[in-house]
Order: sequence, then C-alpha cells, then structure tokens
Amino acid sequence: MISEKMKPLVQNNSVIRIMFEEGKRLAAIYGAENVYDFSLGNPNVPAPDEVEESILEILKEEESTFVHGYMSNAGYEDVRETIAQSLNERFGTRFGQRNILMTVGAASGLNIILKTILDPEDEVLTFAPYFVEYGNYVRNYDGKLVVVSPNTVDFQPNLDEFAQKITAKTKAVIINTPNNPTGVVYSDATLKRLAEILREKEKEFGTVIVLISDEPYRELAYDGVEVPYVTKYYADTVVCYSYSKSLSLPGERIGYLVIPDECNSFAEVMTAATIANRVIGCVNAPSLMQRVIKRCIEKNAKVNLAAYDRNRNLLYNSLKEYGFSCIKPEGAFYLFVKAPIADEKEFCSQAQKHNLLLVPGSSFACPGYVRIAYCVSYEQIERSLPAFQALAKEYGLM
Amino acid sequence: MISEKMKPLVQNNSVIRIMFEEGKRLAAIYGAENVYDFSLGNPNVPAPDEVEESILEILKEEESTFVHGYMSNAGYEDVRETIAQSLNERFGTRFGQRNILMTVGAASGLNIILKTILDPEDEVLTFAPYFVEYGNYVRNYDGKLVVVSPNTVDFQPNLDEFAQKITAKTKAVIINTPNNPTGVVYSDATLKRLAEILREKEKEFGTVIVLISDEPYRELAYDGVEVPYVTKYYADTVVCYSYSKSLSLPGERIGYLVIPDECNSFAEVMTAATIANRVIGCVNAPSLMQRVIKRCIEKNAKVNLAAYDRNRNLLYNSLKEYGFSCIKPEGAFYLFVKAPIADEKEFCSQAQKHNLLLVPGSSFACPGYVRIAYCVSYEQIERSLPAFQALAKEYGLM
Repeated sequence: MISEKMKPLVQNNSVIRIMFEEGKRLAAIYGAENVYDFSLGNPNVPAPDEVEESILEILKEEESTFVHGYMSNAGYEDVRETIAQSLNERFGTRFGQRNILMTVGAASGLNIILKTILDPEDEVLTFAPYFVEYGNYVRNYDGKLVVVSPNTVDFQPNLDEFAQKITAKTKAVIINTPNNPTGVVYSDATLKRLAEILREKEKEFGTVIVLISDEPYRELAYDGVEVPYVTKYYADTVVCYSYSKSLSLPGERIGYLVIPDECNSFAEVMTAATIANRVIGCVNAPSLMQRVIKRCIEKNAKVNLAAYDRNRNLLYNSLKEYGFSCIKPEGAFYLFVKAPIADEKEFCSQAQKHNLLLVPGSSFACPGYVRIAYCVSYEQIERSLPAFQALAKEYGLM
Repeated sequence: MISEKMKPLVQNNSVIRIMFEEGKRLAAIYGAENVYDFSLGNPNVPAPDEVEESILEILKEEESTFVHGYMSNAGYEDVRETIAQSLNERFGTRFGQRNILMTVGAASGLNIILKTILDPEDEVLTFAPYFVEYGNYVRNYDGKLVVVSPNTVDFQPNLDEFAQKITAKTKAVIINTPNNPTGVVYSDATLKRLAEILREKEKEFGTVIVLISDEPYRELAYDGVEVPYVTKYYADTVVCYSYSKSLSLPGERIGYLVIPDECNSFAEVMTAATIANRVIGCVNAPSLMQRVIKRCIEKNAKVNLAAYDRNRNLLYNSLKEYGFSCIKPEGAFYLFVKAPIADEKEFCSQAQKHNLLLVPGSSFACPGYVRIAYCVSYEQIERSLPAFQALAKEYGLM
C-alpha cells in the first residue's frame, strides 16, 4: 500500500525517535528519574518568561482574526522586518523583510529551499557527522546527498576532500554550525576557505552552488566564542534558522529562511521559496508564534544559556575524568564521545543496560562515536554519573 | 537557479494568493472599507472565546517544556485520544489515538498521505470544481491528477465519468465535502454509490484505492443538513481535517489525519504517515495549538456558524434578486456563481473595476463560474451590494 520511496524509511525508522519512544517506555517501568535519556535534542530549559508574557499581551492587544488568521505565505511583514533589523544590528548585515521567509521550523526551511532549487540527480554535499534527516530531505526532491568524511581530529570540516567532491552536479552544500552532533563552531578561517573553494568551483564548472547554513544552534555558544554570520562570506548563502533551541520552542515549529539580495536570481528564488512553503502544505508558519517572536526580539528574550553551560561542564569534566575521549563542545548541547570499542552500537546497547540512552554515531555517518544530548536537567546528569562511571569501568577506562 | 519543477509554479503563482496581495494593495489606496475582497477563505468570524480561555489555562496549568516541547511525531497522545472519542460520540465510529495523526493543517495532511502512498505516475482522481492546490500536492510526489468534469446541474460528483476514469493506475481519489468552491455537501446516496464504484474497481483491477476526504468545512453546514462521515462508507478512507474554519485558526496550521483500523495495511500506513510528517519537515503539529484543541473539544467550542449563515442568506438572496444564477450552498462559506458571460476571467476584471475581488472558476477547473467567499463581515456584504447591482446592470441581468 505504501510508496516505494517510503518503504526504506519505514524499515529504518529514525533511531533517535525510536529511542525517544524507548525512553518513555523505560520511564514507565523504572520511573522517569531512573532513566537517563540523553537521546533527543528536546530542550529541558524552559522558554524564557517573555514567551508567556508576549502571548498574554498579544491576546489582550491584537485582534483574534489577525493573530490566528492567514497572512502572506512568507509571514507577517512586521515580524519579518523585526527579524531583519535584529540580524542587521547583531551581524552588520543589510536585510529587510524582503529577505525573510517565516517557516515551520528549520526542518521545513531546509525542505523549502531544497524543493526550490533541486532537480533530480542534483548533488548536495554535507560534512559527516551530520543530522541524519538531511539525507531524507534531499531524497524528497530526488537529489543525492554526497558526504564528506569526518575529520575526527577537531571535527572542523574536511575541506580538501570537500573540494575534490564538488562536481558540475553539485547544487548545494549544507553546513551546520554550531554543529549537531559535535558542538563544534566553524571558525572564521574555515568559512573563508570554504567560500573560496565554492567560488573557485562555481567558476570552474560555470554553475551556481547554494550554501545552506542550518543554524538552529546559533544562539547556543559558550565561552564567548563567536559564531560568524555565513552570508558575509559567500553571496549564494541561504540561512535556515529555528527558535526551537534559542527560545526553547521545538514543538511550536517556528523559524525562518534568510535569502540575501546578493543571492543569484534573488527575486525569483524568494518567490519560488514562498510558493514552495505553500505547496509542500505548510502554507505559512504558525501565526501566533510569529507574533510571539516579534515581541521576544523586542524584549531581547534569551534562553538560559548558563544552564546548558553548567550541564556541559559537569558532563564533559566527569566523562573526561572517567577516561572517555571527547572534544569540548563550543556550542549546541551535545557531546560527541568516542566509543571505547569500534562498534559503537554495541556500546550503546551496553549503556542501555545502565538505563543510559545514547545515540550511535553511525546515525550521523560517523561510527565509533556516540552523541549525548545534555539538554536535560542538571539533576539527571548528576544521577547518571554513577552509570557512566560503571560503564567506564566495564571498558577498563578507569 | 530554481528547479524545473518550480518554474511553472512561479509562472502561474496562485491566482487566489495574488488577489489576496491585490486586495491589500487596493485597501491601501481606497481604504479597506471600500474594497470588497471576496477572494480568500480567511475567516472573518473570530475564534470562539474558548481558544483564548484554553491558552490562558494551559499557560497557567501546564509545564512550559511540555507545552512547547517535542512530543511523538504523531502528536500528544491525550490530544489524539480526545479527538478520537469526540469523533466516536458524534459519528458512531470506533477510533482511538492510534488512528489520529496531528498535522500542520489539512494541506499538510494531504501532503503526508500523498507522500505515504504515491509512486511516480500513479493517478489521483478528483472532481471539478476542486481546490487548485490538489494538483500541486499530487505533483510533489510525481503523481498525476485526473479530473472528473463538473456536473453543473447540482454540483454533486459526476459518478458515471468517475467510474470510467478509474484505471489500474488509480491510487487515490480526493473528495471535499462540504465543497470548496461550490458549498455542496455530498449526500448519503452519493457516498454510497461512490464507495460501491471504488469497491468494484478495486476488485476489477486487483488494486487498493484510497479515498481521501478533505474536510476543513465539516462543521460549516447550514439548515441542519447532515455531513455523512466518510469512513463509514468505505474502508480505505483517510480523512484530512483542519481547525482553520471550525475554530477560525487558519494561520495556526492545526489539523489531523484519521487512518481507520479497517484501512488496508493500517499499521504500516500509520507508521509511514508519521514518518512522512517528520521528513517533509513539519516534524509535528504546533504543540500549544494541539493542547488548545484538546480543551476546546472538552469545552464543546464552536465557531459562530449563525454569522456565516446570515452572510450566506444576505448574499445569496441579493445576487438571485439581481439576476445572477447560483445554487444555494449547504455548507462551507462560498457561493459559486455562474458568470453572465462565457469568459469568467473577463467578468472578474470587470468586477474588479467596482473593487469587487472574485476568483475565476478556471482556478478550480470550472470556467464560466466565479467563487465568492462570504467569510467576511456582514457590513462588507451590505456595502458591496450596490457594486454587485451595478455589475448586474452592466450585464443586463436586471
């Protein structure tokens, strides 16, 4: 009954999502406090107070038919303008509402831009480890995901291999910084070199290559590290942003695309992307949440980054102490830890016996590692440490 | 730069949406009160008070990380169970949460089920006049929309032609009752015959044909007319529902799919549809609005149907008085009026000179007619009557 394209998806249902369901099942058996679910990027830090404040203000001050009604498919003009100005203030860009397209989260933003530009057999490059859904999104439009192998020294992208893998069929490149699952932030030097390579290859092949910057973790950076704004490095950049993490609203599905004026065929791409937003069935980003975003920007609302930072330090320092090997993440809320054995899936199974739910790196095209999402309560991390310690002992790390 | 598939979409950007933008432009010039925009199904009746009440209760009573967080891709279990029970009470069905998949509106629901079942070249039948986006949704998955020509006598579906057009390639049929743009409700007799034909053809070709019932207007029916529940007529039925009209929440993008147990390969279809919801980029239906729906069902919230009915009667009676030809709609909030000349696009242009924005029937594959959306204020209808009258005189109708 189901389509040929869906069959492999049903067979390989997302490991992360299966773990989410597994976590709920274990919690029902052992009690939530005795299950250490580090599998999903579901923020534990609540939305900042300004979200609730804004909702209350909107219900009081704005018309119901306006707040819950249709607007232009690209989103409310005032919301888009507020976002553009906020980007301009922070990054020295020159966006206006014309450059902003409100989307049903970053996942939808990625689908919109891929639908807009991909023809069948077009190639989309990305860097391992990468978010597993990229492959599904690219296949939605009959494109082909080409993966650059991981640089496990520091998890900055492997740019030599990247340059080699660009062909005349390369239509887009997806980067994700701060990165899921490594927590790495692409440096200014990395982005400069990446942009240079793209420009050279565009010239070599006479093609346009779109750099898609997937940035749901932009606001989650620690120790004052700068997260460079990618449109400043390369003209044909499209940014996919989400408020899922920066305002802890993952279930609300609210984000935006930035398509800069400098982008090749800007007007046509913006029109096509707006239509794509409509025909893939989203129609528009959820209206009340759009209005909330405007007020949250005006109120300078920020999620409690210190809470994640505290989690990061406790978990990173503890795992290092127990003998695990891991680079210290500069952003996002993940640790990407080297498994003490080659088969990291077996390591995950072993961890699960201690009620520790971790995601195998092969889900990110980087076997031998596991992802630990530390967007959980500090107490969960504290309670889980004996389990990590026991695991380290089992593998002779301490 | 944009894909081959997107090019015709950019060239033929939705007439309805262009009119929406045009309406805003004219309103800026002449003042909103002097532009009679009947082009878009954007409800003028505000959401019932229970929506705001529910939001306030949720913010007070439920945890922020729960309300705005990820849940299972299919939606919150308690919300789905509440919807299932409500359907069971009203229609004598036997659904449970297992049959309900929360979606980003009905448009997304349609995309999800089409992605779930369509292989390239599969045929999807629908009845003219039909919502123009069906063609785009089917083409998203490389299917082919096959259109049964309109029965302009009473706008019930043309079932003889329907039976002839079913082939071994027919994978699905989309119906929409109460209908956009005609306002017609499919009768018990119509659905019985339609189901019979489908069962015969399934047997003849040894295939499974899915009946997709697009039902955003289910709750908008007048004069006590019954809108039969389609799953009771045919096992392989999937219902696409939306709260856009029934709770006046079109911008919020909240709806659901019903996939009944009786549906062929139920478990596989439900799993695949849940995955499709994820990979097309929606991930899940907006979380706060899911929670609002639960409470609104419990509070028995209903949109002010009497307001639409009053609009319907004023506009229908006036247009008939002016000499226009039109069937009286039993549901939805549209009049489908015969243009006094064969070229209804020219008629629409003429109407626009009176600041009347109407949608040509050719946008619904039914030229010679125009759609008038009466989900506007009663006052707009009153103010617009002289313009309709002047138009009728120009065409010698009165």
